[in-house]
Amino acid sequence: MSHSDPNNDSRASSGGRVATLGGGLIGRSWTALFLAAGKSVAVYDPDPATEARVKGTIEEAWPVLTALGLAKTEAPEAELVICDDPRVAVEGAEFVQESIPERIALKHELYKVIEPTLPENTVVASSTSGLTLSELQGGWRSPTRFVLGHPFNPPHLIPLVEVMGNELTGPGIVDWTRRFYESVGKVTIEVKREVPGHVANRLQAALWREAIHLVNEGVATVIDIDTAVSSGPGLRWAVMGPTTLFHLGGDDGGLTTFCERYSDSFNRWWDDLGRPHMDDATAARLVEGLSAVADRDDITALAAKRDDLLTAVVAATHGGRRGDSSEAGA
Amino acid sequence: MSHSDPNNDSRASSGGRVATLGGGLIGRSWTALFLAAGKSVAVYDPDPATEARVKGTIEEAWPVLTALGLAKTEAPEAELVICDDPRVAVEGAEFVQESIPERIALKHELYKVIEPTLPENTVVASSTSGLTLSELQGGWRSPTRFVLGHPFNPPHLIPLVEVMGNELTGPGIVDWTRRFYESVGKVTIEVKREVPGHVANRLQAALWREAIHLVNEGVATVIDIDTAVSSGPGLRWAVMGPTTLFHLGGDDGGLTTFCERYSDSFNRWWDDLGRPHMDDATAARLVEGLSAVADRDDITALAAKRDDLLTAVVAATHGGRRGDSSEAGA
Repeated sequence: MSHSDPNNDSRASSGGRVATLGGGLIGRSWTALFLAAGKSVAVYDPDPATEARVKGTIEEAWPVLTALGLAKTEAPEAELVICDDPRVAVEGAEFVQESIPERIALKHELYKVIEPTLPENTVVASSTSGLTLSELQGGWRSPTRFVLGHPFNPPHLIPLVEVMGNELTGPGIVDWTRRFYESVGKVTIEVKREVPGHVANRLQAALWREAIHLVNEGVATVIDIDTAVSSGPGLRWAVMGPTTLFHLGGDDGGLTTFCERYSDSFNRWWDDLGRPHMDDATAARLVEGLSAVADRDDITALAAKRDDLLTAVVAATHGGRRGDSSEAGA
Repeated sequence: MSHSDPNNDSRASSGGRVATLGGGLIGRSWTALFLAAGKSVAVYDPDPATEARVKGTIEEAWPVLTALGLAKTEAPEAELVICDDPRVAVEGAEFVQESIPERIALKHELYKVIEPTLPENTVVASSTSGLTLSELQGGWRSPTRFVLGHPFNPPHLIPLVEVMGNELTGPGIVDWTRRFYESVGKVTIEVKREVPGHVANRLQAALWREAIHLVNEGVATVIDIDTAVSSGPGLRWAVMGPTTLFHLGGDDGGLTTFCERYSDSFNRWWDDLGRPHMDDATAARLVEGLSAVADRDDITALAAKRDDLLTAVVAATHGGRRGDSSEAGA
């Protein structure tokens, strides 16, 4: 393919230019990450408050990026440009991360504006979680270099990006995008079929559904169920995924032995899992169940605690990853 | 109640005697944890190889217990006794953790042997995962001081214990047991109703079921789904449980706003989640999907990697907890 390999390209691994379109929370977090990786970043957002907000996010994110081994220098202010014209932002960019609001008409309009001026080999990725690749492709004359690059929030802290192309995507573009993300410290997976929620949000939904069922059935309190996760299996899931962990639960026989031994248990549990619906009464029950935590710590304090602990956990599990080859699954 | 409070009792918090019945993997891990907390521990197991095995486990576990802030001294060999008579093991014990093989007749037989000689206030907890409290109560003349104390493996490393009593359990016994476990560094939840898998195993089952569904449907590979967990939501679940995390995803409005905003998405995802059955073909598909990881690292090396990372994660999130008051849910 005509694309350069970001892992073997000094432009990509320690320089080069990236555009982030949209200066909301997600776009600003991406911006900080790309700067940490040594990119020049042009941020497009029409809001005049964008520059101050972006600088605020960089200031907050930098200690985290440093703790994770992703930032090696002081925040390079000279490498940051704020633009109110998306065509200016994408000039000379090797990669564009689009994170504007989740409205399809807005996204189509933006793609129409930038497509004629995009450099020939530039890849554009959308951060969208709710819109589908096929819907978004409708905004392009040629969607061959357009993919989904769905982060898990905030992108500068949580490594995962879900990358997706389809039959309209050019050959090698998904692989190039994965390598590009990995060169700036992300961990990628490929979503191969369009389903609601991609992968990570569906897994979250599955866990939360059973948590809610157990609350509804009076098996345990909201707080005790949260504690069960964060003092039990959640600790292991920060380290490895469920199938690898069960492979290690089968003694010398690995996953084969595990499945022989526990298939009946899993089938019995699966048959008994609940299927609650989210409605106002359910939401109220969860809010009431969480009130002891929510009343003790305000949201700002609780969020700060989450971020401090998360930074420590990501540093322990993923520290110094930038430019590593992928260690998927382990 | 007549029980002493383990948090206000020097015998319980820095001394006292505990019996562990069963010298398998789980019993040995409990033994190391209790020794680290300053208890004298009597281990009952009829197998003459028990002493060497217990000492081996203590040697392996001690660096972990030290890293977690749970062991403050060298391993105290003088505080360990191995017995081939369970009546000798429970003599003078304030607490008994039973972890013998998961066969109900064996457990009933053991309870019948120890019940006449148990000190009056001693609480007995079973580590069982597969048998129910009501089944096990059948082995007691008076089950008032008998509870479930189900750990998440290995008990010396993963903080969670699921504690359960029922209408036959004496007043205050579940609370006393929770405080006792917390005084030796565990984090407890209460299971209030008997359901297959208690809480944590059901939550694991829910997550794994959707992971398997996504593999079956060709949405992503086994390895990519594992990576999605351990580089995405798994990192957050090591820090807080799902409902607390979503409370922090609703901006200033907390969980109420989160539910208003995302109820439709969750209901749509929930309606689309799969219901696979575990059978030989499914197991074979998972084994094949994991082969790139399983072939690269043998089980011993992969387990060592898991344990090193887990120790770092638990130290970051739960370090120095022994005797802390519970910080459930946060």
